[in-house]
Amino acid sequence: MRFTAAVTAGRVAELVGGDVIGPTERSLAGVAPLEAAGPGDLAFAAGPRVRDALRGTRAGAVLLPESLTADAPPTTSAIVVPAPIRAMRQVVDALACDGGGWGVHPTARIGRGTRWAGRVQVGAHVVIGREVALGERCVIGDGAVIEDGARVGHGCRIGPGATVHRGAILGDRVVVGSGARVGGEGFGFVREGEGHAKVPHLAGCRVGDDVEIGANSTVDRGAVRDTAIGAGTKIDNLVQIAHNVQIGRRCIVMAQVGIAGSCTVEDDVMLAGQAGIADHLRIGAGSLVAAQSGVIGDVEPGATVSGYPARDHRSVLRQAAALARLTPLVTSIERSLQPDE
Amino acid sequence: MRFTAAVTAGRVAELVGGDVIGPTERSLAGVAPLEAAGPGDLAFAAGPRVRDALRGTRAGAVLLPESLTADAPPTTSAIVVPAPIRAMRQVVDALACDGGGWGVHPTARIGRGTRWAGRVQVGAHVVIGREVALGERCVIGDGAVIEDGARVGHGCRIGPGATVHRGAILGDRVVVGSGARVGGEGFGFVREGEGHAKVPHLAGCRVGDDVEIGANSTVDRGAVRDTAIGAGTKIDNLVQIAHNVQIGRRCIVMAQVGIAGSCTVEDDVMLAGQAGIADHLRIGAGSLVAAQSGVIGDVEPGATVSGYPARDHRSVLRQAAALARLTPLVTSIERSLQPDE
Amino acid sequence: MRFTAAVTAGRVAELVGGDVIGPTERSLAGVAPLEAAGPGDLAFAAGPRVRDALRGTRAGAVLLPESLTADAPPTTSAIVVPAPIRAMRQVVDALACDGGGWGVHPTARIGRGTRWAGRVQVGAHVVIGREVALGERCVIGDGAVIEDGARVGHGCRIGPGATVHRGAILGDRVVVGSGARVGGEGFGFVREGEGHAKVPHLAGCRVGDDVEIGANSTVDRGAVRDTAIGAGTKIDNLVQIAHNVQIGRRCIVMAQVGIAGSCTVEDDVMLAGQAGIADHLRIGAGSLVAAQSGVIGDVEPGATVSGYPARDHRSVLRQAAALARLTPLVTSIERSLQPDE
Repeated sequence: MRFTAAVTAGRVAELVGGDVIGPTERSLAGVAPLEAAGPGDLAFAAGPRVRDALRGTRAGAVLLPESLTADAPPTTSAIVVPAPIRAMRQVVDALACDGGGWGVHPTARIGRGTRWAGRVQVGAHVVIGREVALGERCVIGDGAVIEDGARVGHGCRIGPGATVHRGAILGDRVVVGSGARVGGEGFGFVREGEGHAKVPHLAGCRVGDDVEIGANSTVDRGAVRDTAIGAGTKIDNLVQIAHNVQIGRRCIVMAQVGIAGSCTVEDDVMLAGQAGIADHLRIGAGSLVAAQSGVIGDVEPGATVSGYPARDHRSVLRQAAALARLTPLVTSIERSLQPDE
Repeated sequence: MRFTAAVTAGRVAELVGGDVIGPTERSLAGVAPLEAAGPGDLAFAAGPRVRDALRGTRAGAVLLPESLTADAPPTTSAIVVPAPIRAMRQVVDALACDGGGWGVHPTARIGRGTRWAGRVQVGAHVVIGREVALGERCVIGDGAVIEDGARVGHGCRIGPGATVHRGAILGDRVVVGSGARVGGEGFGFVREGEGHAKVPHLAGCRVGDDVEIGANSTVDRGAVRDTAIGAGTKIDNLVQIAHNVQIGRRCIVMAQVGIAGSCTVEDDVMLAGQAGIADHLRIGAGSLVAAQSGVIGDVEPGATVSGYPARDHRSVLRQAAALARLTPLVTSIERSLQPDE
Repeated sequence: MRFTAAVTAGRVAELVGGDVIGPTERSLAGVAPLEAAGPGDLAFAAGPRVRDALRGTRAGAVLLPESLTADAPPTTSAIVVPAPIRAMRQVVDALACDGGGWGVHPTARIGRGTRWAGRVQVGAHVVIGREVALGERCVIGDGAVIEDGARVGHGCRIGPGATVHRGAILGDRVVVGSGARVGGEGFGFVREGEGHAKVPHLAGCRVGDDVEIGANSTVDRGAVRDTAIGAGTKIDNLVQIAHNVQIGRRCIVMAQVGIAGSCTVEDDVMLAGQAGIADHLRIGAGSLVAAQSGVIGDVEPGATVSGYPARDHRSVLRQAAALARLTPLVTSIERSLQPDE
C-alpha cells in the first residue's frame, strides 16, 4: 500500500507518538508486511511471534514494542510504540487514505431529507435514499446503496456494492464489506392454500458500535423483533444471519457460518467457519462452536462443542477415537455374539 | 416501517375489507411487530401462537382473525380479517410503498429494443440491456443489472445490486434479493492438455411464478438444458444452484444450501440450511433433507434424511444413540475379544 | 444465445477451421444445447457420452469430432473439428459477442493515471480508480468497481457488480464472476482490552493466468504475504478464500468451499462442494477432498479424504459400514459384557 506522498520515519514517529532508534530521515513510500517490505517501506512487528521475521526484514522502518527493539536489524529505523497494530492503523488512515478525499461524488444520488454531519466521502454511483442520516467521517464505497430511513453512525465504512436496507441502524465505526446486505427482508413463510405466503417483516436491524460485517455476508431484518448485533462483534465473509437473531458483544463469527432465525448468541462467543446454528437456540456466553459444527440444541456458557449434532468437544473426540478402534473389531463382535453352531 | 402518510384504523379496515372492534378514528403512522408496536402502530396477529404477545401489545390497531378478538387489549382497535398476513402485506404494499414512485430514474441506462408494460419502477444507476422485456409493476432496485434478452414477468421485484444475466426468463411476481445472481455461466470444464477448458453454457435459466431468491444467492444457467425453478419455490440467502438443476414447485430451500449440477428436486421438497446435494441426483417429492446433510444418493419421495452420507433420519438417530452408548464399552469389548492369556 | 447476425454453416466451418458434411448454406441464428437446438441453431457434441443426444438432435448444424460423424442425423450439417468445445467457444466469442462493442460507456468513471492497452469494453456505471492498468480486450461488466492501483491482464472479463479491490493483480484471461470480491481486507484481529483490534492487511492479492472465480465468491488480500491463486485454477460460486492463502495451479474449487487463513493448496487439487479447510494447513498436490469434508490436518499428495475430521476416504467408508452393522448389535453387546447375574 502506497502513501499519498513519501514521509520520513521521524514524521511517522511524531504521528503515532513513538521514539525512533536509528535514522529519522529515512524516506518511506508505503507500508508492507515484514517479510515483503523493502527499504522504502514501513512495517510493523506486533509481538514475539514475529521475532524471526523482524530479524530478517529489509523494511526501512518498523513499528514495534520496546520488548523487540533488540531484534530490529541495523538497517531499520525502529519506531517504538506501546501498540504497534494500533499505530499501523493510524498510519494507514492518515497517510495511505483512499484519497478520493472528502466530499460527495457528482454521480451519487441522494434522496430528500438525507443529512450528514461534518465530512463524509460518498463514492461514484452511490445511491442514498430519503431521510437517511450519515455520521461524520463516513466513507460510502462506489456503487453502494443505502435505502430510505437508514441511520449510519460516525466513522463507518460501507464497502463498494454493499446494500444497507431501509430502516437499518448502524452504530459508530461499523465496517460493512463489499457486497454485504444488511437489513434485507427475512425468510419467513406460512402455508397458504397449496403454497407459501410471505410473512411481512416489520421489525428492523440494529448493528452496534465497532461491528465488522464481511464481504457478501447477509443480515436479515426481523419479523417479530429487530435483528441485533452487539458492539465489537466481528463477522467474516459469506455469513448468513437470519431474522430476529440477537448476537451479543465481542463475538467472532467466521466465514460461511449460518445462524437460523430467532437465535440468541450471547457475549464473547466464537463460531468457527461453516458452523450452523438451528433456529430459536441460545448459545451461551463465552462458548466456542468448532468449525462445521451443526448445533441443534442450546449451548452452555463456556462450553466447547463440535460435530453434528454438536456436543461437548471432548466427548466427540473420545467417540471418534473409540469408533476408529472399534471398526476392525466388528466382524469379531458379530461372530462372538452369534450362538455357537 | 412508516406509512407515507398517517391513516385511520377505519381506513385500514376499508382497504383490507375488515371489521373494526374499537375506535375507527385512531391514527396510525406505520407498522410494527406486536411486541414492538406503540399506540401509533398497526400490528398483526396471525394465529393462536402469538396470543400472549397480542394480550400484551401496545399497538394502536391489530389485524387479527375472528378467533383472537377476545385477546385484543382494550387499548387496541381490532381489525378482524380472515387472513391477517395477507392483509398486512396489502397494507404495506398500499401505504408503506418504497415511494420512489413509478417511473424510470434518469440515471438508469436502458438498451435498445427493451420494452415494458404499464408502470414500472426502475431505480438509480440501473443498467438494462437490449431486447429486455419487463412486465407491468416491476420494481428494479438501485444499481441492479439486467442483461440482454432477459424477460421479467409482471409484478417482479429485483433487489439492489442484483444481476439477471442474459436470456434469463422470470415468471410473474418473482422476487430476487439484493446481490443475487440469476443465470450466470455455470461451472463446467473438461481436461484440455494439462489444464481445464470451459464448457460453453448454451442453455438458459427459467424461474417460475412466485419464486423468491434470497440475497447473494447464485443460480447458474444450464449447459445441456435450462436450469429451472418451479412456481412457488422459495430460496433463502447465499444458496448455490448449479447448471442444469431442475427444482419443482413449492420447495423451500434454506440458507447456504448447495445443489450441484444436473440434480432434479421434485415438488414440495424442503432442504434445510447448509445441506448439500451432489450432482445428478433425484430428490423425491415431499422429502425433507435436514440441515447440513450431505446427500450423495437419490432420496425417496416423502423420506426424511440427515447426516453424511444422508440416510433415513430415524436410523441416523438410532446410530448416534448406539454410538454414544457404545463408546464407554470399547475397552471392555477389546478385552472380551482377546484370547485369554 | 443468438448471434448478432445469422451466418451459414459454411461460414462457421471457415471460422473454426472445420470441414462440413452436408449443406453449407444452412442459415444459423444462434447456439443451443443438442437437446434444445432447432433447425436454426448450432450445437456441439464433445465426445461419445452425448452420442444419443446427437442422434436425436434437431440442430441445423453440429460441431463434432471425426469419430461422431456417423451419428449426426441427416437433417444436420456436421462440422468436423478436432476440439468441438474449443470451436464452440470461438464461435460464441466471434458471433454472439455481448455486443456492447468495444469502448468505454459514457457513464463509467475512470480515475486519473488509469491506462489500458488497445480495445477494452467498460460497461455502464463502472467505477475504475486511479493508477489502474487494464490489458487489451478486457471486458468490465456494468456496475463493476476496480479500485486504485489494481492491475488487470489481457483478455480478462470482470462480471457485473464485481469488485477488484485496491492493488489486486490479475493475470491474463482471468474471469471474475458477477458480485465476486477480489482482494478485500481479510479477517484478522488481536485482543485489545476487552475487544478485538483489526490487524492491518498490508499484503496483496495475486491471481494467475486463466483463473476463473465464480459469482459472489470472496478472495481476501493478505496480512503477511500476498494471497495467491495459481494459473489455470477454477473457482466456483460462493467460495471463501481467506488472507495469505496460496493455491497452486490447475486446482478445482467447487461451490461454497471455504479455505481458512494461511493454507497452502498445492497444484492439481480438487476441493469438492462445501468442503472446509482449517487454517495453516497444507493440502498436497493432486489430492481430492470430498464434498463437505472438514479438513483439520495436512493432506498427503495424491490422497482422497472425506468426512469430519477428514481422513482417508476408504477408511471412512469402512467405518461407516461397520457402524451401520454394529448399531443393531449394541444391546446384545451391553448384555454380553455384563457379568452374569
